[in-house]
Order: sequence, then C-alpha cells, then structure tokens
Amino acid sequence: MKYQAAGVGESSASDCASLDGEDPLALYRERFFLPSGLKYCDGMSLGALPKEVPRSISKVIEQEWGEGLIRSWNSAGWIDAPRRLGGKLAPLLGADADEVVVADSTSVNLFKLLVAAIRLRPERHVIVVESSNFPTDIYVAEGVAELHPRMELRLVEEGELGAALDDDVAVALLTHVDYKTAKMHDLSSVTREVHRCGALVVWDLSHSTGAVPIDLHAADADMAAGCGYKYLNGGPGAPAFMFVAREHLLRAEQPITAWIGHDQPFEFSTEYVPARSVNRLLSGTPPIVSMAALEAALDLWRDVDLETVRAKSIGLSQLFLQVVESRLGDAAPRLLSPRDPNERGSHLAFGHPNGYEIVQALIDRGMIGDFREPEVMRFGFAPLYMRFTDVLQAAEMLVDVVASRAWDQPKYRERSTVT
Amino acid sequence: MKYQAAGVGESSASDCASLDGEDPLALYRERFFLPSGLKYCDGMSLGALPKEVPRSISKVIEQEWGEGLIRSWNSAGWIDAPRRLGGKLAPLLGADADEVVVADSTSVNLFKLLVAAIRLRPERHVIVVESSNFPTDIYVAEGVAELHPRMELRLVEEGELGAALDDDVAVALLTHVDYKTAKMHDLSSVTREVHRCGALVVWDLSHSTGAVPIDLHAADADMAAGCGYKYLNGGPGAPAFMFVAREHLLRAEQPITAWIGHDQPFEFSTEYVPARSVNRLLSGTPPIVSMAALEAALDLWRDVDLETVRAKSIGLSQLFLQVVESRLGDAAPRLLSPRDPNERGSHLAFGHPNGYEIVQALIDRGMIGDFREPEVMRFGFAPLYMRFTDVLQAAEMLVDVVASRAWDQPKYRERSTVT
Repeated sequence: MKYQAAGVGESSASDCASLDGEDPLALYRERFFLPSGLKYCDGMSLGALPKEVPRSISKVIEQEWGEGLIRSWNSAGWIDAPRRLGGKLAPLLGADADEVVVADSTSVNLFKLLVAAIRLRPERHVIVVESSNFPTDIYVAEGVAELHPRMELRLVEEGELGAALDDDVAVALLTHVDYKTAKMHDLSSVTREVHRCGALVVWDLSHSTGAVPIDLHAADADMAAGCGYKYLNGGPGAPAFMFVAREHLLRAEQPITAWIGHDQPFEFSTEYVPARSVNRLLSGTPPIVSMAALEAALDLWRDVDLETVRAKSIGLSQLFLQVVESRLGDAAPRLLSPRDPNERGSHLAFGHPNGYEIVQALIDRGMIGDFREPEVMRFGFAPLYMRFTDVLQAAEMLVDVVASRAWDQPKYRERSTVT
Repeated sequence: MKYQAAGVGESSASDCASLDGEDPLALYRERFFLPSGLKYCDGMSLGALPKEVPRSISKVIEQEWGEGLIRSWNSAGWIDAPRRLGGKLAPLLGADADEVVVADSTSVNLFKLLVAAIRLRPERHVIVVESSNFPTDIYVAEGVAELHPRMELRLVEEGELGAALDDDVAVALLTHVDYKTAKMHDLSSVTREVHRCGALVVWDLSHSTGAVPIDLHAADADMAAGCGYKYLNGGPGAPAFMFVAREHLLRAEQPITAWIGHDQPFEFSTEYVPARSVNRLLSGTPPIVSMAALEAALDLWRDVDLETVRAKSIGLSQLFLQVVESRLGDAAPRLLSPRDPNERGSHLAFGHPNGYEIVQALIDRGMIGDFREPEVMRFGFAPLYMRFTDVLQAAEMLVDVVASRAWDQPKYRERSTVT
C-alpha cells in the first residue's frame, strides 16, 4: 500500500502532497468540518464534526420533535434508535447487527456488562483488570466488586495477565488499545488466553473502534463496550455501545433493569422480564438528540474499508514519528508507544518532563494534541480526515517547539482541566 | 386567582379567550414552537420544543464542537454542564444548586440513588415500592434488590404504605405524581411518615417537576430523581436529574464509579475516591448535545412563578373535566384521577373500554393525548404553552368523538407501540 512508503526521514512537503493526491480516503476529509489552519491531532479524544450532523440534528429537532412531537417515537423510528445505530456500528466490530446496541455512556455500559459477565460465572470470585486500563475501567470494576461481597479485584501490570488468570477468575476487563500508550492487544490471542482459564472477557474498544479493524467474532469475544465520540466522531459525550456475543446474549442479565429492556415494554407489568434480544441491555429512554449526531457520523462509515483506514493510520503515525525523531535526534521526546506500528493503535505517546508546557505551546500555535499526567503527550491520527500534509506540518511544529524551547514560558505552565 | 373561575359547565369560547387574554403566563407560549392547529395534550410524555433550542444546539455543534473541538471542554464549559444544569433546575425543586446534577437517564439515576440509600441503612433489608409506580421504578428496585443478597422488595398497594413501613425498611422509592392517575403524594407528610420508621425516601419527580411547586428542603426529602423531557421540555430522551440532600451528600456512595465522579478526575489514579460534592453522583462523560437542548429549555423557567403555573394547571384541567363531564353526562369516560385538583398533578386520566380507539381517533383529528394499558386515556395540561382556548377545543373534540362513536372504526383498532 502506497501509504507505507511515507515518512522515511527525508519526508518533504511534496512527498506528502503526492501521498494525499493518491489517497483513496481523500474524499472523506470533505465530509468533515475542520477549522481552517488547525492541525488537529486529538481525534482519539473528540472526533471532528461531520458536515452531515447539523442537518441531521435540525431534522430531528425541528421536524421530528417540533412537528411530530410524541408521535415521532414511532413515526420517526426513535424507539428503534438503539438497535438501528447498533446495526450500523456492527460491521466496524465484526459483529452481527443484532448483537450490538447504542446506549448510555461507556462507564454505565461497562458496569452493566461486568455484572452480566459475573453472573455467567457464579462460582468464581475474581475480576481481572489491567492497571494500565483507562481509570474509569478500573473504577467501574471497583464499583462492581464492591456490590458482590466475595468478589476480589485483581489488578495486573503490563505483561502479567497470563499469571493472573486462574480458576477463580470470572471475568477480565481489558482494553484493546491503551488510552495512554496506544499499545494494542491482539484480540484473538488474548481472548483465547482468558478463555483457557474458563473466564469471560469484556473488551473496552474505545480507542480502537473506527481506527483499527476489529473482528469480535473471529476473536470469539464475549462482550465489549466502547465510546461514540473518539474515532467514530459522534460528538461530545455521544452515546456509547455494547456488544454481547450471541452465545451469551439470552443469558446475559444486566442489573439496571428498566422499561425499555423489558420483553413487553408497553404492557407495563410489575414484573421485569428481560427482552429476548439485545434490547435486554438497555436501561433508560434513549437520548434521541445525541443519538441523531452519532447516527449521522456512523453513516459516514458505510463504504469505508477499514484495512485502508488502518494502512493510512500507520502511514500517518510513522510519518510523524520519523520526522520528530530524525529532526530532533537526541532532543526528541521519548516514544512511549510501541515502535512497531502493528502493535499500536492510531495515536502516538511521547514522554517529556515538560510535556504539559509543550502541549500548551502547540495549542497556542494551532496544533492540538493532549496531555496526560505525569508527562505524556498524545498525538492522534484520524485517517478519515487527516492528510499527510497536515501530519507533516504538525510534526514540524512539535520539532520547532521542542528545538526552540518555545514552551519555556510562564503562560504555558498554568494548569487547567483538560480531558 | 382568575384561572380558577374557569370552566364551570357553561364555559364558552369567549370565557376562555378572556382567560387567555389575562393570563400572566401567556408570553411563554410564544417561546415554544407548536404545530399550527394541533391540540397537544401530551406534555407529560414529551414537552414541546422551545424556540431557543435549535439556536442553542447550533451553537454547541457548529461553534463549540466544530470550531472549538476538544478545547470546548474547558472554554465552552462542557465539563461543568452537569452542575450548571443542576443549578438551573434546583429552584424548581426547592433545593440548593450544589445538591442537584443532571446526568444519565431517570432509570440509571434511580438505580444509583437506591443503592446509595441502601448503603446509608446497612442494617436494614427491605426496599418499599408502590405497585402503582411507573414500572421502571419497580424494575429498577427489583434490579437493586437482586444485587443485595438479603434484600427484599416490598410492593405495596395504594393506601397501604403506612402498614408496610417498619424497622426493616432501608428505603422507600415513591413517585410524587402517579404516571397513570396523576394522584399526588404530599411530599412532606409522606417523607415524615417514612422517616418515622428510620428509613430514607427516594422520590421520583418525573411527573411533577415543572408542573407542581416542589420544596424538597421543606419536605426534608433525602434523595430524588426525575425526567428532563416531560414538563421541563428538554427534548426526547433528555438527560435526567438527581438530588441528594446536603446531610447525606458526602456519605452517599453510588455504585457506578467512573472518572467524572472522582475527587481528582484528571489525576487518573487507579483508586477511586468520590468527589467531595454532588459530582460523586456522576458516572460517564456528559452527553453535551442533549444537555444543550435541556439547558435552553431550563433557561425558560428562570422567571416563572411556579404557584402561577400550578394555578393555571388546575384551571386548565378543571376546564377540561367539566366540559367533558357536563356535555357527555352518563356517557362521559370515568375519571381515574382524584376529583380534587389539589390531590393530583397536571394531567387527567379517564378509563374507557375503548380508550385505545378513542385516543387514535383524536390523534387523527389533531388532538394528542395518550393511552396506557389496559384502558387509560391520559390528557396533560402544560401551563407554559397551553391556552384555555386550546383546552376547551381539545375537550370538545373528546366529547364529539365519544358522543358520535367516531372511534368505532377498524383503522383505530390497529395497535402500534406508543410511549
């Protein structure tokens, strides 16, 4: 694939322009709104705005809510939104349409799936979580363990998963692509390893969905959840998703039982009977306005080939890495991500004692990455809307800020909350 | 108050026009988009669209998301949205701004509060729920009981609450205004009754918030949750809210522990420490787009006097009732709501064996109420945007459909899902 030839040390603007010219994904950039001049390398935190979203939201608000009012639950298909969006997402996950729903937040969904998984292994009493997981995953597991008197949380360090798996483990909550370093698990081999001890796996796919081809069926994965607002571009706080494999689906009992997950939601009986479908994972009324944004964003993916996305993602991140390392030499920030692009997702993490100030100085210059304590700078490459030219310029900005020590100013030291 | 003189049997179009002319809330109707000619009596299911919402959503989508991207978590105040909206809602609840947050759905919020309440009464093992509650409330309580091995669910019939309260009760989950009959509990006296046995109360305020003055402080209420899309007009599936009284707040431990409820959410430590504020009730990333709609809707309430809203609500519902009963006589559908307007919320429920067909025939004529199994017709009166003239015409349509048996057609018998 052409992409991979990019960025071998001597990368020039004309090399990048020609890669962009040949890019089979180039037309997708036109379908996003991108502030002019901005080098946006934070798509792994919040994806850019698809141009279709404002139109789609206006229709939902002005026609469906304003004119249709309560009738739109049926006439505009609101009631089917969790399943309809799940169906649109399923091909990106290697899942069937009737195994995926969109609902709630990633945190709430991980909570529901973890409890459901524990109930499928009632004779076991350990939840395994990697200490490198996004903290929410660990907190959710703590919260679930707290609710189950005998339950023990086993926090494992990188590379120690195998040793932590034994006959006591009910479920392992694992992250496909690490939020900090972008280190990627092999879904199939890790799932197999967990299954070998008789436990289930709940995968957090937040940092891989839309960036990396995922095949949950091929991996024999049990359950998964993930985020709608990163590479899926569903907007700030977009609803999240859940997957439960067919073999577990009709035995999966999540704890937040409510009307919409009922087998007969409009009979309003007093006894809860879970739906005989993936609807049983649902809890409250779906947030239709936020779902409309996510749905328009998901429609963008209909004809996208994820292997092409992956090849471009690797090309972009290799270009960035090689420009930064070749031009800065010994002064280059330390790469925290795996050097082999096949072992990481779609962002790069670098360590630098002045990482916070560097990220602030870059934002000031119109290059947006983000910072994670204590000294991690993250730069993400969203293949649907980033060009090689953008990535080259972004890398050159980082090179310049580090080489010139432009970050060394009091104004870049002020801390504010950044997510 | 003028409102209350309305609708004494002989109500005429000119009586109603003059009431509308003198209505101190008349200006609020102009702030809603209402389809022309439609008589919308379903504001207790989905409130109408405030005109400010499309503008407000466009700003969030096009400027804050599109231009600001990740920076808007700080610069546009996204991160503060759950608290900011809670603060705007607090005056409608008789609560302080720092006791209320907006998040998740009512179902998820009731789940979190019920678990938190149980943990404040660890030596007790009964959850009391009224069988007349909206089924989700019962299902949520079933789900919570299932998670606590010794926990027992005590389902009580109307009027039997007192007998169900004893030293074993940890918490009572009660609905302020019944979703079906609109029967209203007295918040203060019922809370006092529950406290007398040492238990806590979680109030579901979904059908009262924005329709009835609520004073959670005066009632000494412990916890409450409710819906954003009924009388608050926040849009389909709008985020819901939670209230925890100051005396319990810093001891309230909800189970869905996640990054945003952490005391130091951006330190990303592996141990969960709940925030020393109402933020500890939060779980996932807030759904910013849906919250923007609700925020614009909440801003409408800033200068609204809830006593005036209540007086108009009673005037509207009395008008409807008296027109229907006086004109239909023995053929009138049977009132299921309390006859005394002081004992009910802002909708009326009628029983009729052909209730389903009648509601369909009315919708066909442009009068929207709703139907609940097995034979309940509900008609709601949202004082911010309904006129006496509208309610008179809506009542006359019901009178006509019942008197002429216009509902008796095969097309009105077809069942579809209605929420």
